[in-house]
Amino acid sequence: MISAQYSGDKKIFVGQAISTPPGPGEVQIKVAFVGLCGTDLHILHGAMDARVKIPLIFGHEMSGEIAMLGPQVQEWQVGDKVTVMPLDWDNTCPACLAGNKHICQNLNFVGIDSPGALQGLWNVNSSWLLALPADISLKDAALIEPVAVAVHDVRRAELKSGEKIIILGGGPIGILIATVAREFGAEILLAEIDQNRRRMVEEIGFKTIDPTDEGFLETINEWTNGAGADAVFEVSGAASAVLQATDIAKVRGRIVIVAIHPTPRNVNLHRIFMRELTIVGVRVYERIDFELAIEYVSLGKIPCSQLISKVVPISEISEAVATLEAGQAMKILINVGGAAK
Amino acid sequence: MISAQYSGDKKIFVGQAISTPPGPGEVQIKVAFVGLCGTDLHILHGAMDARVKIPLIFGHEMSGEIAMLGPQVQEWQVGDKVTVMPLDWDNTCPACLAGNKHICQNLNFVGIDSPGALQGLWNVNSSWLLALPADISLKDAALIEPVAVAVHDVRRAELKSGEKIIILGGGPIGILIATVAREFGAEILLAEIDQNRRRMVEEIGFKTIDPTDEGFLETINEWTNGAGADAVFEVSGAASAVLQATDIAKVRGRIVIVAIHPTPRNVNLHRIFMRELTIVGVRVYERIDFELAIEYVSLGKIPCSQLISKVVPISEISEAVATLEAGQAMKILINVGGAAK
Repeated sequence: MISAQYSGDKKIFVGQAISTPPGPGEVQIKVAFVGLCGTDLHILHGAMDARVKIPLIFGHEMSGEIAMLGPQVQEWQVGDKVTVMPLDWDNTCPACLAGNKHICQNLNFVGIDSPGALQGLWNVNSSWLLALPADISLKDAALIEPVAVAVHDVRRAELKSGEKIIILGGGPIGILIATVAREFGAEILLAEIDQNRRRMVEEIGFKTIDPTDEGFLETINEWTNGAGADAVFEVSGAASAVLQATDIAKVRGRIVIVAIHPTPRNVNLHRIFMRELTIVGVRVYERIDFELAIEYVSLGKIPCSQLISKVVPISEISEAVATLEAGQAMKILINVGGAAK
Repeated sequence: MISAQYSGDKKIFVGQAISTPPGPGEVQIKVAFVGLCGTDLHILHGAMDARVKIPLIFGHEMSGEIAMLGPQVQEWQVGDKVTVMPLDWDNTCPACLAGNKHICQNLNFVGIDSPGALQGLWNVNSSWLLALPADISLKDAALIEPVAVAVHDVRRAELKSGEKIIILGGGPIGILIATVAREFGAEILLAEIDQNRRRMVEEIGFKTIDPTDEGFLETINEWTNGAGADAVFEVSGAASAVLQATDIAKVRGRIVIVAIHPTPRNVNLHRIFMRELTIVGVRVYERIDFELAIEYVSLGKIPCSQLISKVVPISEISEAVATLEAGQAMKILINVGGAAK
């Protein structure tokens, strides 16, 4: 079978690998599509070399069909369309025992800490599977994982219908948060520096603003009748956005830190005090987030065709990565299935 | 009547002032005791010169008795023991309209933004009053305002019985948070650098730790069985404590920023992400916090006699300020009543 491995030194190795049959409790998935995300780029940049075991078959946004059942697997059938929630918890740490398994203190994130989806035939623990409707597009279904991220973020913000939110950052996750928040009944303003991204976000149906505009604060003040936003989602990863977030949140507003900030950031704690703001940390998703994400994708609530910039064969993965790094695409899917004979 | 004014340039002027009768809706309080707090020191340092109108009669932690009723005041009687919740909101801003009057966007903090309690006869809006039990010690009652701060902080942390909390900073507010948290059923560890303060905190009955100890993290890990603290209260104002707070909170733990950090601080957002932590901003109090504070002081739940380092006449206020600045006292009360003839 074909596979794509991060082989260290910022290189991807695409080649044939030997498939093994699924073990007890496992299923073998014939992988259809795998989306590339920011974390994959971090891995490929070598930024996570201290964590990943090289060579690593990466990839964790995926769709596929069950190809084979391992021993003791009864709830699934060959041919079932599935996606994977790529979290493997230890069930024994204090976080797991307190019911927060998705942020297990010893979490194995599948595709980072153990082999991921960029392989023709992928053996996974059957407990990681989620069933997909038979009529779902497997291309669209490769977006379920990032949609689940957005659902988790919106749920953690405790968003209520009619609330006004500002999203800082108009990449795929920012747009998905906007989409999910719209389903929750929120009014949305998306702040994005890049003009091309703003145009695309507007085409999808959201109001945008340039956060470097001189009148930025004034516009938000007017839009919220002097109150500030009910919730702010920091999705850009920029240090300046972290400072901006506290300026635009209402009294008792919530600031959700979605982007991963690898180093400590300056936070305006005085504003946190003055307005009794709350900063909410978010990480991955829970099963309910995946279930809701599947529902949204199935019902056509997610602008999948606009988000998927292109679909390329696994042989072109290095070019796809370069395109993403250059900011010239939103989401690129790798067509693994087409090459997985 | 006697009064103490911040007269600018780091100076306090103590002298006679003319008292005026209370206006409509006002009562005149014969002030008994006024506590000095960190905010008062900030004012006296000139750090708030941009905000305060000089000369300013400061002071906002107080107790007293009603001396005279203004027109249209019916619910109160001369001789009633009272304290003041020193917040004056505008009732019209978005925060007020949303029910968050205590953090009104145009809040007048009495004793900072308008004349405070360091005067023999103080006219206040009767809506700011809280009744005290007839048998309460007016000295102890001067601590009700900082106790209300602590009650508010603990309530904002949504503290539950049996939870383990760490308080960073062992000044008066840190100790009061510990005391209130104990009433809420929490287990408490108080981290304080100063050895003398640690000794005093232990005498009051709380376990302490030096946050600069090499084994600090390990001790907390052991104390919480590897989980981390359910809630962390940052009361020290130190930049290092803000970074430490994220290291010692459990998965989904809450970090309450109690100290006022005038400039932005480095916050470990990566840890906020990894553990889905929440940072909670807190400011002043709501009426329910004052009511609970009065109850705690009345029932002897607060170690008032240990917290009140000394009581001095208003003529010695400058020396009292110097003692506090030198870190040689916890709480000093000004005996205004004794000089208010």
